Amino acid sequence: MSNDTGHGRGGAPGLVFTPADVPAPTHAERARTLAEQHKFGALSSLALEPAGYPYASFTTFALADGEPVFLISRMAEHTRNLQADARASLLVHDSDKADPLANGRVTLVGKVHKVARPAERERAAFLAAQPTAAYYADFTDFDFYRMQLESVRYIGGYGRMSWVDAAAFLKAEADPLAAAASGILAHMNQDHQTALLAYAHAFTSAQDATQAVMTAVDRYGFELTVHTPRGIGPARLAFEPALTHADDARKALIALLRRAEAQLSG
Amino acid sequence: MSNDTGHGRGGAPGLVFTPADVPAPTHAERARTLAEQHKFGALSSLALEPAGYPYASFTTFALADGEPVFLISRMAEHTRNLQADARASLLVHDSDKADPLANGRVTLVGKVHKVARPAERERAAFLAAQPTAAYYADFTDFDFYRMQLESVRYIGGYGRMSWVDAAAFLKAEADPLAAAASGILAHMNQDHQTALLAYAHAFTSAQDATQAVMTAVDRYGFELTVHTPRGIGPARLAFEPALTHADDARKALIALLRRAEAQLSG
Repeated sequence: MSNDTGHGRGGAPGLVFTPADVPAPTHAERARTLAEQHKFGALSSLALEPAGYPYASFTTFALADGEPVFLISRMAEHTRNLQADARASLLVHDSDKADPLANGRVTLVGKVHKVARPAERERAAFLAAQPTAAYYADFTDFDFYRMQLESVRYIGGYGRMSWVDAAAFLKAEADPLAAAASGILAHMNQDHQTALLAYAHAFTSAQDATQAVMTAVDRYGFELTVHTPRGIGPARLAFEPALTHADDARKALIALLRRAEAQLSG
Repeated sequence: MSNDTGHGRGGAPGLVFTPADVPAPTHAERARTLAEQHKFGALSSLALEPAGYPYASFTTFALADGEPVFLISRMAEHTRNLQADARASLLVHDSDKADPLANGRVTLVGKVHKVARPAERERAAFLAAQPTAAYYADFTDFDFYRMQLESVRYIGGYGRMSWVDAAAFLKAEADPLAAAASGILAHMNQDHQTALLAYAHAFTSAQDATQAVMTAVDRYGFELTVHTPRGIGPARLAFEPALTHADDARKALIALLRRAEAQLSG
């Protein structure tokens, strides 16, 4: 975990309402979470023709213990490129934000080699993520390829970016709340504006908050955009202890509301 | 135009109901249409670190007379990569299909160079496509870059792929129906199933059609997936003459229905 508030560009300069010592996912965890949520990306390989050009192509993939696995045809450009030079990278990006550059993305860099059949680990991981690939997984002109991960570039949007150690990425656990997050945000922002405002009043430095919008949630806590008469700024608050299942979010948010109410009335 | 039926994998092998000599967009036209509809893609450049690896990064872009234009920061990885070696490619892909590999995609390959300010053409094209970039377009650490296009790889889904001549891509006009196409398909499939079936009965080799679904529409015509007791197959039918505006589609489809009805009752 790191003290990454997650807000590089969140309104008036300097207005950040996060209290001290709030845990946040590391960039390795954020990058792993992002990559685990996607099923296709842009593979970059070194072209045979025009020779030496970096060539970006569309590909499906799955992660096997954090390393990208591909099931690609011998006839495809990128396959022939990789057979001649294994150096490659895979870009995966979110596209949920209206501002394209606010979207999270990660580039996984390494060498991509063919895995000899039966390639059991790779096959299992790939078909779990891409069940419709079962019908061509055994075609003789298709092979499993796996990236030996060397480095990871993570960009979480404005002002949140770093090179992530490959070992840290491979060790990181994807966030257990990732699949549920957008539902939690929609629910809280639609039906629980009073609770969000109570969190802001009780736990952030924005006691004058007039509105709070939940913008992100993960196992370690959640993020708010807080409106005040002084301006708008971000805040991050913690779940303590960190959650291990998405199902625990509801209970944790209610418990936090009780604590906020007690503190505000006390 | 080419006689590309647009169906590499459309049901039972060999069942294609397209009549003879139906015009279709060329791959250059299809690739240009696809690229013009998107505002971000995956840029592939040659990394400085790890040196020589092909590096895929997320980027916004616009086309200026068919060539990709970027507005990128000197501090970004891809910018430093391009300054050291201009060879690059840009992947743009659709993501409307449930099967990822059925989505259209295009890779534009060439050398990407910085354009000296004021870069009027590039600035105008970029801001037309990316109006929110106006606030950083004049930051001193941002520059316009433009790809000198050398080759184009087009993949329109299963069984529709080719290398497209760069000159043909630069000369091609994006399809005037592109923005309206999904609305036309939804409207025809929801409200005009009888008309679609009449087209199939009158103009295709599927006189025994039991259902027809419109799957694509462009200036030269449209595509159907036709269900028959013998199996399912694609058909392509022509607009004659080709349309020049999306607004003409409605009139052309009604005129075609009148012709179909006349022929079926005749």
